[in-house]
Amino acid sequence: MTTVRAYAAASATSPLEPTTIDRREVGPRDVLIDIAYAGICHSDIHTIRGEWGEVAYPLTVGHEIVGTVAEVGSDVTRHAVGDRVGVGCMVNSCRECENCLAGEEQYCLEGNVGTYANVDRDGSITQGGYSQKVVVDEDFVLRVPEAIPYEKAAPLLCAGITTYSPLHHWNAGPGKKVAVVGLGGLGHMAVKIAHAMGAEVTVLSQSLRKKDDGLAMGADHYYATSDPETFRALKNGFDLIVNTVSAPLDLKQYLGLLSLDGTMVNVGAPPEPLPIQVFTLFSNRRSFAGSSIGGIRETQEMLDFCAEHGIAPEVELIDAAQINEAYERVLASDVRYRFVIDAATI
Amino acid sequence: MTTVRAYAAASATSPLEPTTIDRREVGPRDVLIDIAYAGICHSDIHTIRGEWGEVAYPLTVGHEIVGTVAEVGSDVTRHAVGDRVGVGCMVNSCRECENCLAGEEQYCLEGNVGTYANVDRDGSITQGGYSQKVVVDEDFVLRVPEAIPYEKAAPLLCAGITTYSPLHHWNAGPGKKVAVVGLGGLGHMAVKIAHAMGAEVTVLSQSLRKKDDGLAMGADHYYATSDPETFRALKNGFDLIVNTVSAPLDLKQYLGLLSLDGTMVNVGAPPEPLPIQVFTLFSNRRSFAGSSIGGIRETQEMLDFCAEHGIAPEVELIDAAQINEAYERVLASDVRYRFVIDAATI
Repeated sequence: MTTVRAYAAASATSPLEPTTIDRREVGPRDVLIDIAYAGICHSDIHTIRGEWGEVAYPLTVGHEIVGTVAEVGSDVTRHAVGDRVGVGCMVNSCRECENCLAGEEQYCLEGNVGTYANVDRDGSITQGGYSQKVVVDEDFVLRVPEAIPYEKAAPLLCAGITTYSPLHHWNAGPGKKVAVVGLGGLGHMAVKIAHAMGAEVTVLSQSLRKKDDGLAMGADHYYATSDPETFRALKNGFDLIVNTVSAPLDLKQYLGLLSLDGTMVNVGAPPEPLPIQVFTLFSNRRSFAGSSIGGIRETQEMLDFCAEHGIAPEVELIDAAQINEAYERVLASDVRYRFVIDAATI
Repeated sequence: MTTVRAYAAASATSPLEPTTIDRREVGPRDVLIDIAYAGICHSDIHTIRGEWGEVAYPLTVGHEIVGTVAEVGSDVTRHAVGDRVGVGCMVNSCRECENCLAGEEQYCLEGNVGTYANVDRDGSITQGGYSQKVVVDEDFVLRVPEAIPYEKAAPLLCAGITTYSPLHHWNAGPGKKVAVVGLGGLGHMAVKIAHAMGAEVTVLSQSLRKKDDGLAMGADHYYATSDPETFRALKNGFDLIVNTVSAPLDLKQYLGLLSLDGTMVNVGAPPEPLPIQVFTLFSNRRSFAGSSIGGIRETQEMLDFCAEHGIAPEVELIDAAQINEAYERVLASDVRYRFVIDAATI
């Protein structure tokens, strides 16, 4: 066991404060990572504040992790000391169910082991990336290409894969019209990736406040959803809508924007149920779907794709002491577009 | 103009009674059909009782029509006098929008022209198949293969295509596990067609009352949805669920039955919105979709498929004088499995 510095909350209402946590001994298939950067995801806030169910405290969150391999177990073959690597939202899965065997560990039928606040296979509670080091099974460790700037890579491990996966699965590409709802941490990655895939990209944002940013990221069009005319003008207009917004939306309005065989896929979701009018789905044979992060193989593919296309998140680098302030700014949608903690300051 | 006998309702609360209606002159591209049989669809009842919006009275319904070609217009090339033909839920569309051009006239962006209660392109209100004759544009007239028993063919034009289309679109076939919710007019066709396509078919019905029928139609398994154990036993079990039930269902329960990339598609729908929990869609990357009848090309494909596989609906042949009684029995789910009116009795 190794004791490392970390930031943790002592309760759902406590601020995150410096502390120490234990990391397990490096087992034969484990990789010890010296964490360099950790992104701040809205899910971190939901989880640590107990909004997605009860969690054990003290808790360290963070599931957008990049760093350097410091040590490998005797049986490790995929990674070597000194490699630049990343860890995303999961650190294990059953590896035996049909979804794991299909390389879709994120949909593990036993439930994947989340990077924090989950029961690990040894019975301990997983602790996330707002810390100096982490020990992870080599199969859940990704290679981070050198072409991706080190301090910007972390958000790809959640925001990147969460948007890449549905764009890839629903065939965003040349000739396809893709709308991205919300231009936040996830949305801005969706725009960059969909554009790089060759799709015609439209941002649907509450206001036109971030329009210049969106167009600079690769969006072809930018509309304000606060203007009812938007929904008339774009009716039947999209093959795919990626909804990155967790607040409840008027589904009838958004589903009405789908063309023949179009799909609206949610990567964010409100905890409460939304009313859906089935008749709206009859027109154009529309679908309403969900998508959750991505599998390990696909996450590696996404990292390689971003390296190849020169895609990186827009980040604001902070010291660990600013985490609580950053949380308030995330909640106020006041971040362009992802906070990344410099782990050297933890 | 030709005056023909028909059954019509004078108001939303009136019974259907014998009357006469006018059919337009046979234009250059029109086909005059001597109607032999007309099926009774639950939609007929919803529409004529004004439950799906205001309609003009008196109204004749019926969109499952088979008969014999009695006369063709000068430019008609697809059909000849004496041919056995059918007409389904639509009699025209704009033919110019991208959906029409894709052969998906049911999703015409201008709205297709329904076989009854719709404004036809000449401004008149379309009148349905509970009548002796009908005049329809040749492009919306289907060939009914001789291999399909004449008195059983009518329900294929709505119940048949409404279930064939989603089964075909979502690739029901060998290796696929398909659930059919509800064993009524639509459900029993879904079972027969999915079985003929090679899928493993499970019926999810409120009770086991029709189990023997379902298995005889080709279902491999039959479960009662009134038993909560059903939802535990079949969790993550289906690639495709075809929901033929118009009553509101607990979506969380049903969506939980979908395996990786599974879709639940609705062909029936309650008028009120249903609450949907987006988190349920995140697991297994599930989709919730709608499907509406089928295009003309696909309807012909379905008729040919049924002829080839010896598939026909189970019908109860009635005289026109029994229509009102039949309606009551449809509402009480007391029909195995479709009423067909012998048009000679109109």
